This record gives sequence, C-alpha cells and structure tokens, in this order.
Amino acid sequence: MKKIVIIGGCAAGPKAASKCKRINPDNIVELYTLENMVSYSACGLPYFIGGIVPNVNNLLVRSPEEFKKMGIDVFLNHKCTKINPDKKTVIFNDEKEVSYDDLILCIGSNPFIPNIKNYNLKNVFNLKVIEDGINIKNFAQTSKSAVLIGAGYIALELLEAFIRNDIKTTVIEKSSRIMPVFDDEISDEIKQEILNNSKGLVEFINNDEVVEFLGNENFEGVITRNGVKVEADFCVVAVGVKPNVDIARDAGIEIGVTGAIKVDNKMRTSIENIWAAGDCTENIFIPTKQSVYRALGTIAYKQGRVAAINVNSDFTGVSEQFDGILGSMVTKFFNYSIAATGLSENAAKELTGYFNIVPISAAVEEYDKAGYMPKIGTLKVKLTVDKRTGEILGAQAIGTGDTDKRISVVASALRANLTIYEFLHLDLPYSPPFSSTIDPLLTAAYKLKQMIDS
Amino acid sequence: MKKIVIIGGCAAGPKAASKCKRINPDNIVELYTLENMVSYSACGLPYFIGGIVPNVNNLLVRSPEEFKKMGIDVFLNHKCTKINPDKKTVIFNDEKEVSYDDLILCIGSNPFIPNIKNYNLKNVFNLKVIEDGINIKNFAQTSKSAVLIGAGYIALELLEAFIRNDIKTTVIEKSSRIMPVFDDEISDEIKQEILNNSKGLVEFINNDEVVEFLGNENFEGVITRNGVKVEADFCVVAVGVKPNVDIARDAGIEIGVTGAIKVDNKMRTSIENIWAAGDCTENIFIPTKQSVYRALGTIAYKQGRVAAINVNSDFTGVSEQFDGILGSMVTKFFNYSIAATGLSENAAKELTGYFNIVPISAAVEEYDKAGYMPKIGTLKVKLTVDKRTGEILGAQAIGTGDTDKRISVVASALRANLTIYEFLHLDLPYSPPFSSTIDPLLTAAYKLKQMIDS
Repeated sequence: MKKIVIIGGCAAGPKAASKCKRINPDNIVELYTLENMVSYSACGLPYFIGGIVPNVNNLLVRSPEEFKKMGIDVFLNHKCTKINPDKKTVIFNDEKEVSYDDLILCIGSNPFIPNIKNYNLKNVFNLKVIEDGINIKNFAQTSKSAVLIGAGYIALELLEAFIRNDIKTTVIEKSSRIMPVFDDEISDEIKQEILNNSKGLVEFINNDEVVEFLGNENFEGVITRNGVKVEADFCVVAVGVKPNVDIARDAGIEIGVTGAIKVDNKMRTSIENIWAAGDCTENIFIPTKQSVYRALGTIAYKQGRVAAINVNSDFTGVSEQFDGILGSMVTKFFNYSIAATGLSENAAKELTGYFNIVPISAAVEEYDKAGYMPKIGTLKVKLTVDKRTGEILGAQAIGTGDTDKRISVVASALRANLTIYEFLHLDLPYSPPFSSTIDPLLTAAYKLKQMIDS
Repeated sequence: MKKIVIIGGCAAGPKAASKCKRINPDNIVELYTLENMVSYSACGLPYFIGGIVPNVNNLLVRSPEEFKKMGIDVFLNHKCTKINPDKKTVIFNDEKEVSYDDLILCIGSNPFIPNIKNYNLKNVFNLKVIEDGINIKNFAQTSKSAVLIGAGYIALELLEAFIRNDIKTTVIEKSSRIMPVFDDEISDEIKQEILNNSKGLVEFINNDEVVEFLGNENFEGVITRNGVKVEADFCVVAVGVKPNVDIARDAGIEIGVTGAIKVDNKMRTSIENIWAAGDCTENIFIPTKQSVYRALGTIAYKQGRVAAINVNSDFTGVSEQFDGILGSMVTKFFNYSIAATGLSENAAKELTGYFNIVPISAAVEEYDKAGYMPKIGTLKVKLTVDKRTGEILGAQAIGTGDTDKRISVVASALRANLTIYEFLHLDLPYSPPFSSTIDPLLTAAYKLKQMIDS
C-alpha cells in the first residue's frame, strides 16, 4: 500500500489514477487538477464546437463522483505550485501541503503564445482545456468571421467546425504551407482540398504572421507583418503547445533537450518516486531514437497506464516499458482524411546529415476499394524508405478513402523494422468492399522496389 | 525477347500477361482462357448478384481489345488439354498446338462438388466464373427460395445478396458452426448477427449435410442425412474449391501435399520454364511455414506479378520473391464485417502437437471510435499469441466497426514477428473520428501481457 498523488486531470492523470487503484485497491490515490472538471477528451473539443458532438458532457469520461466510487479522491481547482522532493510533499494553491509516497506528474502542456502586440483582448482563444472549447463554441454560434492563427491539425479540425457554423475564416500561417508534418506536395493538396470544399468561407494567408491585434477591449482583427489587415469577430491561436514544466524544473527534475520533462522508459523522472506521463514529457522517436516532443492524447493515455504499472511494480512484481512513439497521426476535414506515421520525406532528408540513410519515396493514387463498388474513395499514399536497406521510414496518406487503415499498417511495419521487400506482398485482408486487389500501399512498396532495383 | 504463353483468364493470368509485356515490349505474350470473357473480378460476383454492382460489365478489368492494344493476344474459349514440356508446347481443345519459351499456368480452381444423389439438375449452381454469377443473378431475380450448401465466406456474401433479393434461404452446413476459419464463440456470434439481421429470411441447418436433390429436370429441394426435407427454387453449392491441376499432373509437374501445384518462392514449378500462379498453386503459410491451399484473388494477383517478373529476370536482372501468406481475409454481411489473419486459437491449439507453441488468447469488445462520436460501430477483436515468447499468432475481428483496419495492422505485425510486448503500445494514428484513445487491439494485447505476467 502506498499513497500516490497524481497531478493532472485530463488524460494521463485519470488513466494513471484508475490504474493505480485497480492494481492495488489498498493504495491511497489522490488526483489533483487545476481545472473545475476532470477526465475528459480534449481531442473531442473541435467536434463539440462543430456540433457533431451535441453536448460537452459527452466528452466527460468519468466524473469526480465516479472516481470517488472507485476509491479515488479528486481535487478540483487545485493548482500545484511547488514540489518538495526532499519532504515528499506537494503544495497546492501556495498553501495546502500534501504528502506522497509516489508522485505522478501529468501536468500537460500550455498553448504556445506567439509574440503579438495587444494580445490580451477578449475573444482571443486557445483550444486547450474544456473551458476553451465551451467559450469558442458559445462565441462561434453568434459570429460571422474568425481569424485562425496556425495551420496544424488542431487548426484544421477547428476549420471544419467553423465551416459547420458558417463562419468566414482567415487562416494565417507563418510557414509557406499548411500541415507541415507532411511533405510539400501533400500539404499543397490538403490546402487545395480545403479550399475546394469550404463553401468559399476559407482564406489562407501563408508566409506571413500576425504582429498585432486590433481592438481595445474586444478583438476586432489582426495586422500581419506584411501589412495585411483582417477584421474578424474572434480569433483562435493554434500554433502548438509547449510542455508545462515549471514546477518540475523548480524541484530539480531534469528537463530534456526538447524542453519537456525527461523520463526513462518506465516513465521515471530524474528524482526518485516522481514519475511523469503525457504532454509534459518528451518521447523517444523510434525511427531515429531521438528525443522529440509530441503532445497527443493516445500517448498520454498509454504513458499514464505505464507509469501506474511501474509505480506499483514493487507490489506486483510486474513492470512495463514505453519504448517510444512513431509520430502517427490522423485527422479529417469533412470526408477527407489525412494521416501520417514516421518520417516524411522532408524530415528524412533533413536527417541525412546525422544518420546514414538515403531516403527515397514513391506515391500512388488509387481508389481505396475495388473500383466497381459504390461509395469508393480515393487515396494517395506516399511511402518513404531507406534506399540502402529498404527499411520503411514513414508514410503519409490523404484522400476520401481509408487513409487511417493504411497508416496504421505502416505504423505496425515501421515498429517492426520491416523492409519493403517483406512489406511488398503483405497479405492484407482483401475483398471488394474493403480494398483493391493489390492495396495502394503495396503498389507504392513495389514502385520503391523498382526504384531500388533500377 | 521470348514467347510467353499464359493459361488462365481471371486474375493471375491477366496480371502476369500485362506485366510480361510491360517488362519487355518485345515479348510475344499470349493469354489463353477457356471462358468467353477475360480479366474480371470474380470476387465482385456476390455484389453483382446482390445488385450493389449494377452491371456485370463493371467487373471487367480489361477487354480482349484492350489487351490487343497492349500487344497481348487473348484467346477465348481455349481449354488447355495437354502440356508437352519436352517439346515446349501446349495443346488447346485437343487440337491446336502452341509453342512457348515460358509457360505460366494460372489455371485456377474448380468448385468442390459434394457427393449428392441426383446432383445434375437445372438450377443448381456454383459460383466460380462470371457466367455462374450471371446465371445465379438471373435466377435470383425471379425466385422466392434457395438452398445454400456451405457456410464459408462465399456463402455469407451470397446470403447478403439473396436477402437483398428477398429470397428465403436455408443454409446447410456439415460442421457444427459457420465460418470455420473463426473460433467457435466468434463464429457463433456471426451466426447470431446474421439471424438478427436477415428479416427472418435465413435459416441455418448445422451438423447435417445434403445427401440428395429432389426434382427430375429442375432442382426442387434437398434431403439431408438427418432426413430433413427443404424445398426451394434453386440451390447454390458453395463448399469451397479444389485446385485445377490435371493437365499439370499429366505433364509431370510436381503436385504438393495440399493437392495444388507446388511452386518455389519465384513461382517456378518443378519443370523448367513452367511457372504457376494463383488458385492452382499451394502456398507457404508464414506463421508455421507449412504448405497450405488458399484460393484468394489478392494472392493470385500478387503471384501473377511475381511470376512475370521472374520469367523475365534473365532479361532484366531483377527477380522477386513471394514469401507466403498469412491467411488474411475480410468479408461483410451488410454493415457487419468479419476479418481474420494468421491462426485462430482453435488452429493454433491443433498445432501444439507439431510446434513448440503455447497459444493463449484475449478478446476485447469496444466501440471502434471515441464513444461520443456519431455513427460509431462496435468491434470485438480476439488476439492469439504464443505464451512462451509473446509472438503474435493471429487475430480475428467482428463487428460493425472497422475490423478490416485492425486485422490489417495485425497482419503487418505478424509478418514481422512482432511480440505483444512491442505491439502493446503501438503508436497507431488516433483521433476521435477514427479510433478510441487506446485501440481495442492494444487493449487485447495488454490483457495478454497481464495473462502472461500473472
């Protein structure tokens, strides 16, 4: 039996709490969050804003009462302000001191705030916690226009939500293209698809950035570095997140090269009996073994579970490793989905100075089912491999077809260091309603073999 | 340049022909088929019968004229009656002798015909070639009742087609359950799902077999071994296929343990310059390295391509290997899909006498997307691994959710000998419209780890 204090109420924290209690019901498990809600799906917020998920309560996974029934005490509105590793206590709201045997930090991330003049206006939002989602939704329902700063996948999901609310949206992105996790030509196609299917409501401004907000109390618009002025009812800043590490750093916990908390594969921090999981930690990127920072719900859940198992391994004798991530992602824009895993060709080429790899890629565009079946989609899949070994480095897929399936298959192959020679004739389940006789993925692999052979 | 004769017009043959011509346009490529059509998707026939594919011509991949344009001569209505390996010729329709430099046999399979008294009646069908599909469809449109003998995946696909035609169907299956590629409890669930969603049109008779057909000229019904009499307008016999090997055996080509043509991983038969691909060949089952017989379109296509590449490797210097199959399959019954790869638990247990494996399984039933998203399906996934090593042996999935994706992921992992310890935290792409935060597959893997750890 031990007293386990878990800080963080979104994904990793609740997962770790439930698991700690389930592993040993004698454990005292306390879950603290600075929010006034606990255990919800932040990833579902864009779908709530878009009206696909009708009620914000649908996103709640487990209420404080349900945790109570499990024997877990939840403390809302508790902001951790200090960790005392020597005393094995934590301080909340600068006053309440709580002791722990083991402490699991699931303190998440904060929105990255760009340097914009006159930033602190009403009607400027981030989308991070559930309250943000509620605020944006309330505002979106009565608004006609928005500025969206950033063009990553959260921005893309918000874009669909805004179009569903008939909001004219200007997307302003510093880089030359959107969804920079994808290669240039793929991200150009994504942009075109969005423009073609957004009822004229969307405008992109690339290669430019917002330097100033207009308005006195309320947001009224933006001015960009290139002098473009865009007026709008509200603004969402979605330029990524940074790990929340201040209390960890202050406590002497080692921060990794990415700026996030450094953990080993058991989710241990550098200080004994302090563990970390989720958005506040950095990860090993399996294809390169480098440390990377990726804040994603599915990783948070897995790490929360792994941390809980290892916190209790002195009791159970069972431990578990989290070996790292592949950078897999998927999202959608209406019926069009985009997915990726591993390295893009761009990213692989940037690594050729550090790693002995020769990236080559092949793209295939095809129906995603037998061509004669109804409601078939199309799919473009781009596979990148190391020319020297044939080892798969990564893949990207876009289209109205099932991109998610293809990227999942590559994720599995990538995790296992499969070469395209083995992947080429992979026996994927086939029948006409599900895929073409030879899956586009395998055709891409075959093209790569031809490129290597020739 | 060489003269390549290819026998077989459905999947492997046309694929091999196109590839042979594309690799070296100087090749003389001749494609012979005993049918009066060439190059079509036999797998699409149930969907044509069900009316999902409106016209049988939709199933045609390439016409003889299109082959002609590619420089490939197609010979319809040519039944190969003899191979003369010494002279390097083949005889068609007992008279026409054709010489070859290389011969690729894509002579397919024949329906397995059970021993039934009074079998040769009108309105008794198999579903193998395109003409069968046309005949069944014509009959189905004016019929009220059918007997379906067999309960494998072709039978299942026909069942949906018959229900779409409002045909009362009695399925008679020798074994105690349907879809025997699945474990007992899974196949029981499939049966229940069909009964619940077939508008009362379907009846199953298991543990029984048809011994006699009723009728003089036209089929009128069946009598089973247990004395059950079922009257119906027509009958489809779908109890599997057997490889078509007679002309190969007569020519001295080695037949494998399964009764199909034995080929190496280059698709070479035992006689020089004679190759084989598709349903007439046996395959290596990768998980056990045993020879198995599986007649599937996707395998035929891949083998046709591999054969063509290797036939021409003296010209190109490029060769390719076909390493075997995983037994992956997927099919559907309306919105309910069923998929599998590798070994079922039953099959794995049967092998414990021959292989040093200890199969254990875990099943998980969950939503296949975030629970708060609209139109989510459910999914049951069962994963079987070797308890000693954690190596994945196989998986089965059923449900209204995306079973195909999960089985594709396992196929990839299985091909790569991934253990569940590696598979457990696989970084599959996640967002709410596509999967739950921790995919059911990974939850099943986690349950297995717990079983092994405890």
